[in-house]
Amino acid sequence: MSEGVEWAIHTAVLLAALPAGRSLPAARLAEFHELPPAYLAKQLQALATAGIVATTAGRRGGYRLARPAADVTVLDIVRGIEGSSPAFRCTEIRRQGPGAAGASHYRHPCGIARVMGDAEAAWREALAATTVHDLLVEVVNTVSPVSIRRTTEFLEEAMR
Amino acid sequence: MSEGVEWAIHTAVLLAALPAGRSLPAARLAEFHELPPAYLAKQLQALATAGIVATTAGRRGGYRLARPAADVTVLDIVRGIEGSSPAFRCTEIRRQGPGAAGASHYRHPCGIARVMGDAEAAWREALAATTVHDLLVEVVNTVSPVSIRRTTEFLEEAMR
Repeated sequence: MSEGVEWAIHTAVLLAALPAGRSLPAARLAEFHELPPAYLAKQLQALATAGIVATTAGRRGGYRLARPAADVTVLDIVRGIEGSSPAFRCTEIRRQGPGAAGASHYRHPCGIARVMGDAEAAWREALAATTVHDLLVEVVNTVSPVSIRRTTEFLEEAMR
Repeated sequence: MSEGVEWAIHTAVLLAALPAGRSLPAARLAEFHELPPAYLAKQLQALATAGIVATTAGRRGGYRLARPAADVTVLDIVRGIEGSSPAFRCTEIRRQGPGAAGASHYRHPCGIARVMGDAEAAWREALAATTVHDLLVEVVNTVSPVSIRRTTEFLEEAMR
């Protein structure tokens, strides 16, 4: 999994902390976690394509969440960055070689593909159970007051 | 995930079908699913390093499962091939940039790393719940009698 996933989730949580209707330029989002601006810009474009963030033009323009933070799950972000192809791809090798039978003999799905698919479904389910709003609430409740103050100061200055 | 995972799991199920104490040469294992022998040999070496298969020398030598099929989980094989590093790697970017505080301020683990870690734990748990023995039973119960017969003929000839 690319480090872009970590960056994109943290960035979404920061966007969730903005006042309604406000945006932040990509350069400011990169600055907040000291991320390479060009690479983060690519992640933001992927999130925009996935309908997770949207851009606003103008002097106070930039990126914002495209929908309420409670409607954006961690799975949405991971798929926005990594795509939604399964990690395990079954190529049906059971149908080739000296043990194979004709196509009509394979009425049951391959048990190996099923086990691998069920495991990925459990992973997706876990990621879909947490929203960006949940993460923001957790950050606010667990992070040091020093970080909260510094973040607030950064956002006030960046949105000026 | 590499296609070697699919190959390794299918190969382990085939080895589980061998009579006790018997082995199959790597070339025969590759032949059974029409896999590239050199690449499958690498997967077999990885499985040997992981203690999942063992080699027997001599005219009837080759690969066999190193322990009972009921003691080899799908997770064992996936980790044998792909390693056991988590897919998501937290680099603690929350500790850098204008919102960060000193190291002593981070007493709680990052919520993002926790969610990603919990999802991977759910994935591992699902893969650990199925053994190679389970898969063999499922194959025997669902595959066409034609495949069973052809596989038996292949194994009898290959073990001669």
